[in-house]
Order: sequence, then C-alpha cells, then structure tokens
Amino acid sequence: MSSSDIFIGETIGTAILILLGGGVCAAVTLKASKARNAGWLAITFGWGFAVLTAVYTTAPLSGAHLNPAVTLAIAIKDGDWKNVPVYWAGQILGAMIGAALVWIAYYGQFHAHLTDREIVGGPGAQDTAKAVEAQEKAAGPVLGIFSTGPEVRVAWQNVATEIIGTVVLVLAVLTQGLNDKGNGLGTLGALITALVVVSIGLSLGGPTGYAINPARDLGPRIVHALLPLPNKGGSDWGYAWVPVVGPLIGGAIAAGIYNVAFA
Amino acid sequence: MSSSDIFIGETIGTAILILLGGGVCAAVTLKASKARNAGWLAITFGWGFAVLTAVYTTAPLSGAHLNPAVTLAIAIKDGDWKNVPVYWAGQILGAMIGAALVWIAYYGQFHAHLTDREIVGGPGAQDTAKAVEAQEKAAGPVLGIFSTGPEVRVAWQNVATEIIGTVVLVLAVLTQGLNDKGNGLGTLGALITALVVVSIGLSLGGPTGYAINPARDLGPRIVHALLPLPNKGGSDWGYAWVPVVGPLIGGAIAAGIYNVAFA
Amino acid sequence: MSSSDIFIGETIGTAILILLGGGVCAAVTLKASKARNAGWLAITFGWGFAVLTAVYTTAPLSGAHLNPAVTLAIAIKDGDWKNVPVYWAGQILGAMIGAALVWIAYYGQFHAHLTDREIVGGPGAQDTAKAVEAQEKAAGPVLGIFSTGPEVRVAWQNVATEIIGTVVLVLAVLTQGLNDKGNGLGTLGALITALVVVSIGLSLGGPTGYAINPARDLGPRIVHALLPLPNKGGSDWGYAWVPVVGPLIGGAIAAGIYNVAFA
Amino acid sequence: MSSSDIFIGETIGTAILILLGGGVCAAVTLKASKARNAGWLAITFGWGFAVLTAVYTTAPLSGAHLNPAVTLAIAIKDGDWKNVPVYWAGQILGAMIGAALVWIAYYGQFHAHLTDREIVGGPGAQDTAKAVEAQEKAAGPVLGIFSTGPEVRVAWQNVATEIIGTVVLVLAVLTQGLNDKGNGLGTLGALITALVVVSIGLSLGGPTGYAINPARDLGPRIVHALLPLPNKGGSDWGYAWVPVVGPLIGGAIAAGIYNVAFA
Repeated sequence: MSSSDIFIGETIGTAILILLGGGVCAAVTLKASKARNAGWLAITFGWGFAVLTAVYTTAPLSGAHLNPAVTLAIAIKDGDWKNVPVYWAGQILGAMIGAALVWIAYYGQFHAHLTDREIVGGPGAQDTAKAVEAQEKAAGPVLGIFSTGPEVRVAWQNVATEIIGTVVLVLAVLTQGLNDKGNGLGTLGALITALVVVSIGLSLGGPTGYAINPARDLGPRIVHALLPLPNKGGSDWGYAWVPVVGPLIGGAIAAGIYNVAFA
Repeated sequence: MSSSDIFIGETIGTAILILLGGGVCAAVTLKASKARNAGWLAITFGWGFAVLTAVYTTAPLSGAHLNPAVTLAIAIKDGDWKNVPVYWAGQILGAMIGAALVWIAYYGQFHAHLTDREIVGGPGAQDTAKAVEAQEKAAGPVLGIFSTGPEVRVAWQNVATEIIGTVVLVLAVLTQGLNDKGNGLGTLGALITALVVVSIGLSLGGPTGYAINPARDLGPRIVHALLPLPNKGGSDWGYAWVPVVGPLIGGAIAAGIYNVAFA
Repeated sequence: MSSSDIFIGETIGTAILILLGGGVCAAVTLKASKARNAGWLAITFGWGFAVLTAVYTTAPLSGAHLNPAVTLAIAIKDGDWKNVPVYWAGQILGAMIGAALVWIAYYGQFHAHLTDREIVGGPGAQDTAKAVEAQEKAAGPVLGIFSTGPEVRVAWQNVATEIIGTVVLVLAVLTQGLNDKGNGLGTLGALITALVVVSIGLSLGGPTGYAINPARDLGPRIVHALLPLPNKGGSDWGYAWVPVVGPLIGGAIAAGIYNVAFA
Repeated sequence: MSSSDIFIGETIGTAILILLGGGVCAAVTLKASKARNAGWLAITFGWGFAVLTAVYTTAPLSGAHLNPAVTLAIAIKDGDWKNVPVYWAGQILGAMIGAALVWIAYYGQFHAHLTDREIVGGPGAQDTAKAVEAQEKAAGPVLGIFSTGPEVRVAWQNVATEIIGTVVLVLAVLTQGLNDKGNGLGTLGALITALVVVSIGLSLGGPTGYAINPARDLGPRIVHALLPLPNKGGSDWGYAWVPVVGPLIGGAIAAGIYNVAFA
C-alpha cells in the first residue's frame, strides 16, 4: 500500500466511522430526531455497524486500522513503524471530518435542541444566569455526541476501563490473521470486528462510554470546541487525556500478549 | 444478464424490499398490530433485513441494485448506461407493487387505524371539521408507512442528509467488488449491505427517515395517493423531490469518490 | 439422504425450532421469567435464531426443511415427491416434541402464570364465573406460546398475510442454490435464512403472528390441547386451518415464481 | 495443540468470555452505568457477542471450548480424555480472572451501587437491622453479575432447563465439523455459535438465567465470595451445584445424540 492510499483510506474510513458513530449519538440524543431515546442497544449497534461500514469500505485501500491504538499494536507486533505517522494523521483528520458531517446531517436537530428555551432554562426561565447554568448541565449530552465522558470520574478506573476494552478489541483484530487465512479483512473480518465492538459497548461501555480509540475521541472533541454551536458548553479538556492514553496503553498490552501467547 | 432478467429481478426485488420495509413501518405504526410501538431499532433492523432478503433473493437475476441511485453510480463507474432505463423501470414498478402488498397484508390494521373515531377526532369529537383537521395531523404516521418525511423541514439540510446517507451506502456497495473476489453479491455481500443500511438508519435516519433510494420513496408515495384509504390525508408532494434528488446526487458523488480514490 | 436420516433430522430440527421459538414466547409472556416483557424485537430475533440453530444443527442430516411449505415448494420445483411424507411426518412430530420441551423448561413459570389468582380473576375476584370468563380472555397469551392467532380476525386477510410471508420465505430458500454454490446450507445459508425469518417477523408478523409454517402452528396447538395445564383456555381450533392452508399456498406460489422467473 | 497452548488459550478465552458476559450484567444492573436498564435483549446479545469475541480470539490457540460441558462432550464423541483436565483448569482459572476484571472495570459503579443508602435501606432507613435485611434482598442483582439464579427455585426443573439449554448449545457445536469443512472454527463458526447462544438466552434463559457452562457460573461465584465488596450479601452456595451438574449432563446427552444420529 502506498502512503497516499493509506492516508486517503484512513481519512475516508475514519470519517465514515465518526459520521456514523457520532450520528447515532446525535440520533438518540437530539430533539426532533426520529430516533430520540432509542436507547443503549441502538447506540452500541450503531457504533458497531459504523465500524463495519467504515472497515468494509476502506480495507482495500489502507487495511482500515481507523484507530491509532490498532496502528500502534500492529507496529509493535510487526516491528515496523514506518507508516505510523501517516496512519495517525489520516485517522485524526478523518475523525474531524466525520464529526463535522454529523453537524451538517443534524443541523436542524442541533439548533432545535440547543436553542429551545425549555432545554436551556426550563419553561418559565427568566433568569439568564440560571439558564446558562442549566445549559452547562444540559450540554453534557451534546458533548456526548462528539466525545466520551465518565459516569464516575475516577482517573485510575477510567483509564483501566479504557485499557481493558482496548485490549479486547485489539486482541481480536490481531488474531484475524490467524483465523481468516486468505479471506481478507474486508469481508467476514469486518463483520466480526464490528460485532466485537458491539460486544465491548454492551459489556464495557457503562463506565466511560468506551472510546477505545484515541482518534474517535480527540478529533470530535476538537471539532466540538471549534463549531459555532450556541450554548454548547465546555469541551471537558480535563478528561481528554484519558481516552487517548488508555487506548494506547491497551493497544500496547494487547500486542505484548499477542507476541507472547499467539505468535 | 438479459434485459428481461434485469427487469424481472429488479421488479421482484424492489417489491420484496418495499413489502418488508413498508411492512415494518406498518407493523410499528398501526393499531391492532402485534408489533405496535416496537421502536426505532425494529424499524432500522426491519429495513436492513428487507434489503438482505430482497438482495439475496434477486441478486442471481439482476444483480439486485433495487435503487436508482445505485444504478446511477454503477453506470458512472463503468461508463455503461445501456441498462439504466430497464433498471429504473423495474425499480419503480416493484416499489409500487411492494407498497400495494403492504396494504393487503395489513388491510384490517389500516382499517382499524384510520376509521377509529378516537384516532380521527378524539374520544368526544362531534365537530367534523375539527375531526378532519385532527386527521390531517394524524395522517402523518400513515403516510410514513409509504414515504419519508423530515422532522425539521429545511430543504438544504434535508437534501444534505439524504446525500450523506446515500454516499455512505453507495461507497460500500461499490467497494464490494474489491472485497468479495469471487464470492458473489448474493451471499456475504447481501449481509454486509443489509447491515450498512441498518447503520445508516440508526446513525443518519433521525432527521429525514433515510430514503437514500428514490424508488423507495416515490413508488410508495404514488401508491399512497392512489389507494382508497379512508381519512388518509395528503401525500406531501411538496417534499417528494428531496428523497429523489438527494439520493441521486449522493450516488453520483460516491461514484466520483470511488473513481478518484479506489479505482 | 436416507429416509431415516431425513426423519431423524427433521424431527430433531423441528423440535429445536419449536423449543426455541415457543421458548422465546414463553420467556416474554410468562410470570416469573427473567425475560418478561422483553418485547417484539426479542420475539422476532428469538424465532430467527431458533431457525438458525435448528437449520445449522440438522442440515447435514436432512437438509433442514423444518417446514411443510418448504418441503412442498422443493417438491414442486424438483418434481420429486418421494420423500414428502417422511419430511412432513418428522416435522409434525418434532414440532410436538419441541412444544412439550417448552412446557418442561418453563414448568414453574406456567404454574405461576396460570394459577395466580390475580391473573385468573383480578385481585378481588370472588365470583368464579367471572374469574373463568376473565381467564378465557387471559388464556390468549398462553395459547400464544404454542400457536399463532390474528389481531383482526378476517379470514381472507389472515390467509393472504400468511401467503405473502411464506412466499418471501420460500423464495429466499429456493434461491440459496443460486447463491451459495458449494458452500452448503449449513453455514452462511442458515444465517441468511434466519435473518430472512427475522425480517418477515418484523415486517409481516403484525397481523397474524407469522406462522409461515404449518407444522410450527399445528404441532404445538395439538400439544396445547393435550397438556394438563390448569386454566389453559381453548385451543382456538376455528383458526387452526389458516396457518396450515396459507403457508402451503404460499409455498406453492413461490415454487411457481421460481420456476418461471429464476430457473 | 500443546498442553500449554490449550491452557493459555482456554484461560485467556474464558477470561474474555466472563469479562464481557459479566460486564453486560454489570452494565445493565449497576447504578452510574450508561447502560443501566438496557434490558434483556442487551443481556442476551451481550453474552452472545462475548462468546463470539472469546471464541474468535482464542480458537487458533486451544480450539476455544471455554466450557467444561463442551470439553466433556468432545471427549465423549472422540473417546479422547487426555486433555480434559488441562481444558477444565484453564476454564475455571479464566472465569475467575474474567470476573475480577469486571470488578475493576466497574469499580466505581459497584461502589455507587452497594454503598448508596437508598439502595441499602430505602430513603428513610434508620433501623440497621431492616437495612441489612433489605440489602440481603437487594444483593440478588449484584450476585447476578457473577452467577446465575432461578426465578422459581425447583431443583428438578432448574436442572432440566439447564440440561435442555446445554443440549441445544453442544449439538450445534458438535455439528460444526459437519458444516464448516475446512473453514475452521474461528471465522463463521464463531459467529454461528455466538448467535446460538443469543438464541438460548432469548428462548431458554427465562427460568434460570442460562448458565449452560459450569465454569461460567462456578468461577465467578468463587470470586464473588472472595471480593471485598461492601454489603454484597451471600453467594447462594445452595444453588451452585445446579449450573454445574445440569450443563455436564446436557453435554453428555448431546454427545450421545450426536454419536447415535449424526456420526
């Protein structure tokens, strides 16, 4: 694979991943969406099939890592770091493009959600200060369309949960080579990976919202900070390191387990 | 493939697609249905597995485009426009047959839903004008069994959302040739395409109900206008161009991306 | 395949099908079940994966028809009626065994459900006649664990809905031979067939509960009539012909469509 | 396969199985989890995809039995008992590791759930004895994150339900060799097995919570007894034999059916 194929493939693939993954969060969260309150199953299947669509579409171009932790793990496993910067650059750029596309696809829904007086300060709100304070609280769900956040904010546990989830994901990705001899990633491997992601979401998503992918969290968080959304609230930068560091550690651990036990 | 195989395959396939896709909307919407209020997951999986069933059944006959935007994209990609009219004709005819079959399968449910006084004008409704007005409002869900409609009616956003969804669908369809070397569309490809459609529904269906297929929307809208349903309300022709134009633009964009980045 | 392999395979396979299919209805319906009120999605996926499990397990033995309408359609398509009686006998016997296994697996749940005074006649019920009458009504859900019933009882529509659903099912089964060259029914074909059944359930199950299989309905109805369940109510024999005749007609129509359009 | 590969594979695989399976129970049960009350479908798909992830990841190492009943059945079928102790040891150890990982991943959620006064004794609880009694009742759901328990405690039925569920599981596992000639367990077989487990959960999980695997129940029950969880309640050792004995009997019966009817 050429560097340009890798960059284009990872950019398109991660854009599709975040468009569909952020999209399901928008669909379930925002007012005036047909999918509002469709629930946790919708979110976890939505993210899983986002992985399916993105991997299936771009595997022939770049191998469809779409996740800096996967790229790191493959580099450790193969001892080949040459293309890591190209993969990572495409992943971050793609994640930002995907988040921006979510904003376009749900433009009217964001507007209805964020400017509705009933959301900002309650039906009878006249005190602006109170309305802004209420909005700060309400902004959580809108940031949640872009990035993850913990239910209980304890750094060591949040990092540990992200590590555990990423180890599960990356181990499954690395063993594909052992299972799918000659079938290629794009067909059955894409489906299995997608369902592994559904599994991680259902089983390990409860505490932190399962970033398990630094680009998936950081790229959209930057876009959240940049977008001209009214009443959008803060981007919670104090938490931003957790879904970057945790998954990278998890990817490295998975690569180590693979090299010791499976290779 | 002969022209008659294409026409018969697309007619049968699109009929199955709309029978099952419209069917799940009827099942979830109508009174006296066991699936009433089964929710957004039921609708999105219902449409996805409708695609699976229709593609799997008719891929050996016509290749199972079942969507004018897919036919357009393949024509652009291959530079071969010869069979486009046959595909499109079969797709529109099939969509109309499918919508009529939904009406037959749910005949008693339509009747119970549309003629129930409590739906038409509320329990104590005596004022006919008011009842008709209430019905106009209530008719939304019944039209929704046939065609799509936006939650926030802003033309540029509605078109943009349909374009984005269709680009995701068609890119995945076009890359099948790269992934499934020799496996054929009917087996694993049909499953992947189906889950991509579930993904688009979950993630991008919130604003407009994801037509992403001109025949899927236009054919049933015509049937809604023709059927002798009591109190059925209008067919919302003012919106009808959006789910035709948006998907066709999306299909063309996806073909362009494919030819530049993947070919 | 020998006659004894066919008979044993169809008996085991249809027993698994009805054990799991009736099981999910029991799980969702009965008191003291962890799955109570799990909803329509649970029922439709439950029946679909029941088909998957049954077909996958017994395809190597008998080809896994597990449905007299499928056997009829294959006989029409191939012009070979020799094994039809063996298939049908195994299917009916298996369906009865499966229904009896549901009763064993949910024995305590049936007891809790059917003998609870609050279900039989309401919290303050003292009038036995009234309690019996209430029970007659309440018995619907318990019969529903065994057999199907319509929401709106109109014979022509009920038959039509069963025909339409069975045509969709059987067409997909018959085209497997065109799609899965050499893969065999047991692997991917079992999965596709299962998801087609989920699709039919989601999209066409609303009016009649989608028997689409005479053995699936008749066998368990006989067992319902025989089992010593307290307060079980009637077995609704007046409806029993619909889910037998409708699916058989549907299978014949699908075979006709196949022979004209696909062969 | 070497003994060390078997031991490592079964340990890693069963750890992943219980991490993800116990994880979904924690996600749905505990306070301060994003997935709280996601319902029975989430639990059954969560356990099914836990099987998928675990089997797919470790099939190349150990064949991925991950279940003493499966190991027993394969030993009976092949008449080869040499590796049974290694499989069983890895499975129990892995199940205990997995349960401990659930505790780490949901550490803050366990704390919030078990130490909340509102859970322990109700909002106005001042009587400690009453609070402890209430906790004994409330502890059920927390034990349910580790081990199974019956809704109606009738030993013969509970054993029967576990036998029936395990027969279905093991028959499907044993017939894989007939279906997937040369494809290997890791790919499509892992997916089919996963969906069979979803099926058993949906259809036969209502009465006892479908252990269908002695290690899945016993390992986490030991961990529940050992962990320093506040207010955790008893580990219900009186029931612990049922999900060990039932599945082992079921595995043996399935092997017998296989040897008589399929071999």
